[in-house]
Parts: sequence; structure tokens; C-alpha cells
Amino acid sequence: MSEPFCSSFRVYYEDTDAGGIVYHANYLKFCERVRSDFVREVVGFSQRDALKGAAQGTGHGFVMTKFNGKFIAPAQLEDLLTVSCIPYKVTPARIEIYQEVKNEEGKLLYAQRCTLAYIDFARNTPMAVPVEFTSSFKQYLAPEDMVYAC
Amino acid sequence: MSEPFCSSFRVYYEDTDAGGIVYHANYLKFCERVRSDFVREVVGFSQRDALKGAAQGTGHGFVMTKFNGKFIAPAQLEDLLTVSCIPYKVTPARIEIYQEVKNEEGKLLYAQRCTLAYIDFARNTPMAVPVEFTSSFKQYLAPEDMVYAC
Amino acid sequence: MSEPFCSSFRVYYEDTDAGGIVYHANYLKFCERVRSDFVREVVGFSQRDALKGAAQGTGHGFVMTKFNGKFIAPAQLEDLLTVSCIPYKVTPARIEIYQEVKNEEGKLLYAQRCTLAYIDFARNTPMAVPVEFTSSFKQYLAPEDMVYAC
Amino acid sequence: MSEPFCSSFRVYYEDTDAGGIVYHANYLKFCERVRSDFVREVVGFSQRDALKGAAQGTGHGFVMTKFNGKFIAPAQLEDLLTVSCIPYKVTPARIEIYQEVKNEEGKLLYAQRCTLAYIDFARNTPMAVPVEFTSSFKQYLAPEDMVYAC
Repeated sequence: MSEPFCSSFRVYYEDTDAGGIVYHANYLKFCERVRSDFVREVVGFSQRDALKGAAQGTGHGFVMTKFNGKFIAPAQLEDLLTVSCIPYKVTPARIEIYQEVKNEEGKLLYAQRCTLAYIDFARNTPMAVPVEFTSSFKQYLAPEDMVYAC
Repeated sequence: MSEPFCSSFRVYYEDTDAGGIVYHANYLKFCERVRSDFVREVVGFSQRDALKGAAQGTGHGFVMTKFNGKFIAPAQLEDLLTVSCIPYKVTPARIEIYQEVKNEEGKLLYAQRCTLAYIDFARNTPMAVPVEFTSSFKQYLAPEDMVYAC
Repeated sequence: MSEPFCSSFRVYYEDTDAGGIVYHANYLKFCERVRSDFVREVVGFSQRDALKGAAQGTGHGFVMTKFNGKFIAPAQLEDLLTVSCIPYKVTPARIEIYQEVKNEEGKLLYAQRCTLAYIDFARNTPMAVPVEFTSSFKQYLAPEDMVYAC
Repeated sequence: MSEPFCSSFRVYYEDTDAGGIVYHANYLKFCERVRSDFVREVVGFSQRDALKGAAQGTGHGFVMTKFNGKFIAPAQLEDLLTVSCIPYKVTPARIEIYQEVKNEEGKLLYAQRCTLAYIDFARNTPMAVPVEFTSSFKQYLAPEDMVYAC
């Protein structure tokens, strides 16, 4: 798969702070939106159905266990951001994802790595990621020559 | 009860927007915090327990059905806001609440009215507000000579 | 203009709360996004440029002075919402807008009215809305036979 | 300084998501609130004044350049969280801070490290952190035997 999975989002007033730029924690929101788009559109995993299962004590799903992010340049009101979701390590125990936020000129603003585990919601215990999901993530596995900004 | 129920909150970066002031929808968050403090501390209603009941199909609780707000002056970064929760109409069918947001100098910045109903979460149908709750709300009923800013 | 101006937004985890539905104040965020799209795409007003002007003491722009909203049915995770921006009263002193939030099945979830004024940011005083803006808003004026849900 | 600098915050509906727990990015907001309390109360740095300076082209202040976080256990609605701000490396070039989020039982829920730089807002270029600020941060320097959870 040569092109990374991406979604685009406009920066609205709600995303900015009094410094005149996007509030730092909101880059994590943009990154989470793309991961949600990825699991819904590529993996075929319905977070809504998983929540219904959770309410009945039978659900399982992805949770973030750790992340690290680097702030390179600020995003501003009205920017149209493109955010990527690039799995670079996929095992039954965890999925590691690299993400970039760029503006319309293609300038890199923020880069992030995060680790997802798969858990049984009722028991709050880790499970193996089902094979149909790991194989979906692998379709978009990071290319070998990829350069990481963080 | 002569003094209205109030809570105080500092304005942090997360609450502001690129206009340099508190983002308009965030006044609703401040008002919801105080209502939550009120039901927890005065009414003795645990929202956390209600959610557990909801997950088991037995919960009920308060939901907002309508509201209106008026923006009078902007709050700014580092302001310490005092927000009130003043029930002015309490019946088994609904509870109507008036709220004000003031800064440290006592200047009125925002005023809001909202209506709460009480519902059965599983069936999503209205119920009568239990008497122990209506009587708690009535302890803080608006004084007869109160002046409303919206 | 027969069709109202609309934008669509997916509901992500960030928009929901522990009740399993969209947090009430976030409907105001969705409505603000559409108004921002409207002023950028239809009115040709750049909020980013207005902020730059504000920093130099020369800016002016739109602010919300009041609103009222009605909650009809809850939006849920993964819903694709369509939100409208329908001016129904446009004068040099203020612009009144009606907005609806619907899900993919066209079910009405939330309706809102709000009033915008136009102010000089440096002096925080009201100004007449420029004619080029009022005429843009009037292109999308509410049809005479429109039914309002709030 | 034996005790770390801490602030406490209640978990409200706005902080939670449909998973029934605090939304992951909101731990960053709690951490930022404590850093703001620290710079205001200990360092004596007014973020509001810095913003005014920025608007006039003369401001400088702290910005986050990178961070990493670890999610250990979820916070829930109504939890009263205690969040710490512990500088562990303080130089003129940057300040490194470690933070923990604990619930009322003292259980560790989230841990984070972040790096702050000091910049000239108008030129967006790094500056040396003023000595009066580094010496304030050093009052709360991490104890030598501290154990870090991330």
C-alpha cells in the first residue's frame, strides 16, 4: 500500500486557544478521529457496536496505552489539516501507529506515535487482537524506507 | 435559603479560543459543572451510580431538554469564575434552573436558563422527578424578588 | 435559495460523554462550525484575517449575543450529522440564524436559534454589519413557509 | 522541597466519553491546568500579561515542544483527581516536567513527561528561560530517589 490512510479536518474556533493557535491537546483529538475512520472504513470494526457489547458485558475493543508527540509548527484557525494513520508494528499483543498532521501547503506541524492494545471491556484485561483486524492494519503497514519525525 | 448554590472555576487555556476569550460553548460546560456539584452535594444524587444502573437497564436520571443563554461580557484566561445554580420552578414533570457566571469583581458575564426532565434511561421515557429530589431543589428555590438577566 | 446551507460532521469519541451520547454543549460546537463554513464560503469573510486585524487594533467581526436550543433526540458515536445554517432575520444591527442537526436518516436531533452582532474588537462596541455581508446572508434567507422546531 | 506541587480537579461529564471513562486527550488538559497553576502561583508568571505582550509584539512565554504519556487505569465520572507538576531537569534552554494523575484512593491513573521551551512570540524563536523562572522551578525539583512511572 503506497499511500498512507488520511483524513482531513478544518480548524474551527473550538480547536484554538488564546495563544491564537490550536490548543496542544487537540492534536490528539485530530489523530484519534483518523484512527476511528481507519478502524471503521478499513478494519470494518464498529466502535458503536463494541460499546453496545460493552454495555451487555460482552464487548472488546482498542484502547491507547501510551503515546509520544512532537510539536513542530502551530496550526491556525481555518487551516485544512491532513492527518495520517500509519501502522508500523502489528502483533496480536499490540498495534503501533505513527501519525502526522500537515497543513494545506504540506508543512509538517505535529508527529505522534501511539500504542494500541485490545481489551475485554468487562474484565478490563488484554486480549489478542483478532487476526482479521491485524491483517487489515497490515494493508497499510509503514513502507520500509519511511522517515519518522518523532 | 438566602444564598444561591455556587462553584468556582479557574479559566485555563483549554477554555479559551483564538479570539483571546472563553469559547462561547464553554460557558455551558461551566454551568453543567455546577449543576453536577448541586445534584451530588445537595440532592444526594450520584451520577456515577445512575450510569451503572443505566448499563444494567435500571437507571434513571436528569437530562436537559432546552436552554437559552445570553452573552454579556467575555471571560479571559486566568479569571476565577463563580457560577450559580438557582432552581426557579420545581415540579414532578420538570425542573427549571437559572444560572449566572461572574468574574472575581462580581461582573456578570453570562446568564442562562435551562429545563431538566427526569427519564428512564432504558426506555428513554419521562418519569416523575422523585419527591426527595424535588424537595432538595426547593431548598435553593429562587427568591421572590430575584432579577433575571435573561 | 431553495436549499439551506449545510455541512456534515462525523461524531467521534471526543464529542460523546459517559451517558453514551453526544455531550449537550457540543451541539453548539457543531452549529458554530457550520456558521464558520458559511461566513468563509458564502460571505467571503476570513476569520483568520479578522483576528490579525484584531491583534493590530483594527479588526471587526461577528460575535454571538444570545441563543436558545432544544434537545429532541440524542446523537451517537459514528453518526454522520448534517447541520444547517439558515438566516431568518438580517439587519445592519444583527443577524438571526436558525440551525438544525439531523442524523443520516434525516431525523431531527437538535434545533437552535442564535443572534449575531458585529463588533469593533478593539473597542468592544457594536458596528453596523457591512452591506456586502448582509446581502450574502440574504441569499440564504429562510423560506416564508419554513417550520421552526424551536 | 519534599512535597510535589499539586492541584485537584473533579471529573465532570464534559471530561468523559462514550466508553464511560475520561477521554484520553483530556488527561493532557488536567496536566496543563496544573502547570498553569504552577507558573501563576510559584513562578509568578502571568500568562494573561504574556498574551497582552504578544498582541503588542513584545511577549514571550512557555510552549510545549514534546511530550509522552502512559495510560495506567481509567478515571471515571465524579472522581476527584490530584495532578502533580514535578520539574526534573531545569536549564536555560528547556524545562522538563513529570506529572502524575491519581484518584482519591491514591491510585496512579496516568503519568506524563513534557518539555517546555521559552520563546519570543513575535519572532517564534527560542530564548533563554529567565533566571528568576528557572530558580522558581528548581524549588520543586524532583527528589533524587524519585520513581518515574513513564
